[in-house]
Amino acid sequence: MNKKIILRDDEMPTSWYNVVPDIPNGLQPPLDPETMQPVSPEKLAAVFPMGLLEQEMSAERLIPIPEEVREIYGIWRPTPLVRATNLEKALGTKAKIFFKNESVSPVGSHKPNSAVAQAYYNKREGVKRLSTETGAGQWGSALSMAAGMLGLECKVYMVRVSFDQKPYRKSMMKTYGADVVASPSPDTNVGRAILEKDPGCNGALGIAISEALEDAATHDNTNYALGSVLNHVVLHQSIIGLEAKKQMEIAGEYPDVIIGCCGGGSNFAGFAVPYVPDYLEGKKIRFVGVEPESCPTMTAGRLAYDSGDVAMMTPLLYMYTLGHDFMPPGIHAGGLRYHGMAPIVSALVRENIIEPVSVHQLECFEAGILFAKTEGIIPAPETCHAIRGAIVEATRDLNEPKTIMFNFSGHGLIDMAAYDNYLAGNLHNYAMPEEEIAASLANLPTVK
Amino acid sequence: MNKKIILRDDEMPTSWYNVVPDIPNGLQPPLDPETMQPVSPEKLAAVFPMGLLEQEMSAERLIPIPEEVREIYGIWRPTPLVRATNLEKALGTKAKIFFKNESVSPVGSHKPNSAVAQAYYNKREGVKRLSTETGAGQWGSALSMAAGMLGLECKVYMVRVSFDQKPYRKSMMKTYGADVVASPSPDTNVGRAILEKDPGCNGALGIAISEALEDAATHDNTNYALGSVLNHVVLHQSIIGLEAKKQMEIAGEYPDVIIGCCGGGSNFAGFAVPYVPDYLEGKKIRFVGVEPESCPTMTAGRLAYDSGDVAMMTPLLYMYTLGHDFMPPGIHAGGLRYHGMAPIVSALVRENIIEPVSVHQLECFEAGILFAKTEGIIPAPETCHAIRGAIVEATRDLNEPKTIMFNFSGHGLIDMAAYDNYLAGNLHNYAMPEEEIAASLANLPTVK
Repeated sequence: MNKKIILRDDEMPTSWYNVVPDIPNGLQPPLDPETMQPVSPEKLAAVFPMGLLEQEMSAERLIPIPEEVREIYGIWRPTPLVRATNLEKALGTKAKIFFKNESVSPVGSHKPNSAVAQAYYNKREGVKRLSTETGAGQWGSALSMAAGMLGLECKVYMVRVSFDQKPYRKSMMKTYGADVVASPSPDTNVGRAILEKDPGCNGALGIAISEALEDAATHDNTNYALGSVLNHVVLHQSIIGLEAKKQMEIAGEYPDVIIGCCGGGSNFAGFAVPYVPDYLEGKKIRFVGVEPESCPTMTAGRLAYDSGDVAMMTPLLYMYTLGHDFMPPGIHAGGLRYHGMAPIVSALVRENIIEPVSVHQLECFEAGILFAKTEGIIPAPETCHAIRGAIVEATRDLNEPKTIMFNFSGHGLIDMAAYDNYLAGNLHNYAMPEEEIAASLANLPTVK
Repeated sequence: MNKKIILRDDEMPTSWYNVVPDIPNGLQPPLDPETMQPVSPEKLAAVFPMGLLEQEMSAERLIPIPEEVREIYGIWRPTPLVRATNLEKALGTKAKIFFKNESVSPVGSHKPNSAVAQAYYNKREGVKRLSTETGAGQWGSALSMAAGMLGLECKVYMVRVSFDQKPYRKSMMKTYGADVVASPSPDTNVGRAILEKDPGCNGALGIAISEALEDAATHDNTNYALGSVLNHVVLHQSIIGLEAKKQMEIAGEYPDVIIGCCGGGSNFAGFAVPYVPDYLEGKKIRFVGVEPESCPTMTAGRLAYDSGDVAMMTPLLYMYTLGHDFMPPGIHAGGLRYHGMAPIVSALVRENIIEPVSVHQLECFEAGILFAKTEGIIPAPETCHAIRGAIVEATRDLNEPKTIMFNFSGHGLIDMAAYDNYLAGNLHNYAMPEEEIAASLANLPTVK
């Protein structure tokens, strides 16, 4: 048996798949926080190019991938679909476990799938400079890469705690030619106001988003780019699942369970949604989204309109949220520390199509180390959540011959400090207390 | 045109290629440093398994790759052969540039090609524990991975300067379950003696090899593993070139120049040697091995019998060498800081088949950054040397339509501190003074 299934360049999907028209009962429109009415495309056009706005609003199922984007994808895509035979043996399970290896991209994660597309559409419309935020640094390095390759300037607001803890991420962005600052920064009004009150502020993704948005609004020829949550990001990430579906067909397999980790939701959604039409036609598939106990957006949050950032500059999105001023604890899976969940994922949870589960971080690192010792690749802390989810499914009944597929969203080679802390016994589990969640949920914006 | 050429798992080579029987005028045998006579296999069997010794001495051209090794290779192999179209455009050259992307392996380099094979043969012969040295950490992490996957214990002696500067490499090895110490260490007689004289000693690969050899000789069920230089390592790495040759055939291309960086020589040799039979049959191919000006083994060293380590515990190898007590300066391409060169590469240089060239580190980092901004992947500092070599070939005459192929031996994501130093202007060029080389060459062992 082949260890993995690969596709040639000419077998790469030529269109992304947009799940929006297939979501039962559809999506609620984003609202303008000033008027509480559906936000106008003109307003969004201040920070996004039309090419991406059309995708954000599109009712088309298939949207062609531009040739230039496909050529850059071709450096690492199609990515391999690998059978985790050694992990199966170690678990003693009759389940088959497949993983889609997105860690082979130049920056080691799935993030370039959207970064390259976003940089491309911005460039096509004459934009010269992009601003963005980054938490763990995966998105910031991916957008820096894409901007560098397409000749755009790039400014990254990086959550201070990561800026200090992850020097290599910073170095990657600088190597690609981007400008990186710790957020909150003295470069924006939002940042200066926060620093005045709290000079040692650790930052949060919601703050960095506010800074990047202000940057785009106050600089010439500058647009804003977001690495998850929005519909067009999920659209770009659908290439993961479209490839995986082809590869599973070649393997002669069909998944019983599809698993991914959920921060903003784009890697899991991009992996899972190409199977949603099959599900709607009656195929038995379970979609399991795994989030951390310490930031339990889907499992302990509320489905409501909320802002994407702390300063409430974004449109209000209808999504599972813990409240836009929710402050997640500093667990090492920085990419999963966001208060909201992609509206597409949220709607699929609402429709009982996606099952959300939450897991503790210690069992995730344990799963990650077992994976490293069996399949060789050291997973990113975020990815450890998906692996933990897969192990739970594979070991519930060791004799049940089912087929599990999970998205290996990225490697952990730039996050080894997290493993050091785990191996030294410095990490502990943390479940967010109900009253803290209730307190931030009490600050949700009022929508009539 | 496809951006890259890939092979399916069932197109992976089933045998390694051993170039030794094809080298004109052959290899000189390794000598026992005590008797100055060819070393007996029995003596080597104290630290190496028979499976590897047979390969070391073999006169067979093709040696089958065991099924178990192929299955582990299958996690990441065959690796892609990518056309560097964006780099070509940036250079304005009519040359076609292809690179073999070995950075997609779990540890980010070509090293697991030999690590997995070495761990396999040791395990097959009942060995329970491996000892090894590592300089930059690429080999140490690869052997730790292979040992972890095959259930062997592993002890790594890591050159102190890297141990202190590259904490993530250490973390990777620990995650795979290996034991890592800074070398010189208090764990061996060799280490203790050096520490007594010089407690702050930075270490060197030659010292770490001595420690690992002593460890293997003094522990039960323990063998030694070396990550480059030896014939069996070059043999295992030949899978790179065997795949590349198939891929170039699919692309309908034939290389005019084959380029790689040279530390101990195994990545370049593994990439290049499958084309040696074509060369001997009259095909016009140039083989260019790129080494640093600061450790110019082939371009300023001598072809002679020398020891592989400082304590002169290894057999004497007939190779280009700067002398076994040569102390290379601390340039950032730690993997290229070794005094000797693989006997296979040395013999091919002697026969004027391989052309050695040396380059300065600043132009290498410049090349690496251009590569990152065009092809997206940040190269390891070692790999930057190969890229620099390719750029020199591609720009000598911009209008000459030639085909260049180089080995992208590894990514730099765990070596970003080197880029930080380069971008901050802290690095400088360094050519090793002739008198220092003369001094260490004066200490070569006397062979009659």
